[in-house]
Amino acid sequence: MDPESFAHVEKTGEYRDGTVLVKELVAVGSKEESSGKGYFQGDFSGLEISVKDSKRFPDEPGNWAYFSFGHKYPLKAETAKNGATSCNSCHEKNATKFVFSDLYPVLKDSLQKAKK
Amino acid sequence: MDPESFAHVEKTGEYRDGTVLVKELVAVGSKEESSGKGYFQGDFSGLEISVKDSKRFPDEPGNWAYFSFGHKYPLKAETAKNGATSCNSCHEKNATKFVFSDLYPVLKDSLQKAKK
Repeated sequence: MDPESFAHVEKTGEYRDGTVLVKELVAVGSKEESSGKGYFQGDFSGLEISVKDSKRFPDEPGNWAYFSFGHKYPLKAETAKNGATSCNSCHEKNATKFVFSDLYPVLKDSLQKAKK
Repeated sequence: MDPESFAHVEKTGEYRDGTVLVKELVAVGSKEESSGKGYFQGDFSGLEISVKDSKRFPDEPGNWAYFSFGHKYPLKAETAKNGATSCNSCHEKNATKFVFSDLYPVLKDSLQKAKK
């Protein structure tokens, strides 16, 4: 997340207009190393970005738009936003405030602290 | 890694004296979410730090010392370095320049580029 928007989340528990989230997908490289068993990172396997912007996306639920730069390298240099039904509808239904924050421990913790 | 030491790695492919690496361990929270199958982060499950410092650790192989702050919360506020045989010997034998850089795609890529 862009640092200014993350500071806003920490303070208020809300995603401000202009929030940008970048998700890098990483493959599992191995499940066992010298240190023991686990899930060890391999190579990056995709890049996806979501943007909350009421001016650019007035018609998207929550003003969130979702962009995929692909899952093969080289990634796309440019991409159009996905249709609302392919990403937004699931984020609206299954995530918290359109973000799957429960899957990111730092973000999850920040939201819980902001509530208090 | 501290930013100055990472910049040094990008430029030279070497870990400078004073390099600090912090490793946060994260549990797998789930293996299936609305978006599909994968390994989704749960809670943090430990904190470990390694420091390369020829003045502080003149007798450690490669001048690397390894510290574990535990795998239960609350983590230790202070900890002594581990004995050379418990961490360093495996890093010396199995890692690249004492760091398991192959498991971190950004670091791995930086080292490869620095070689050229």
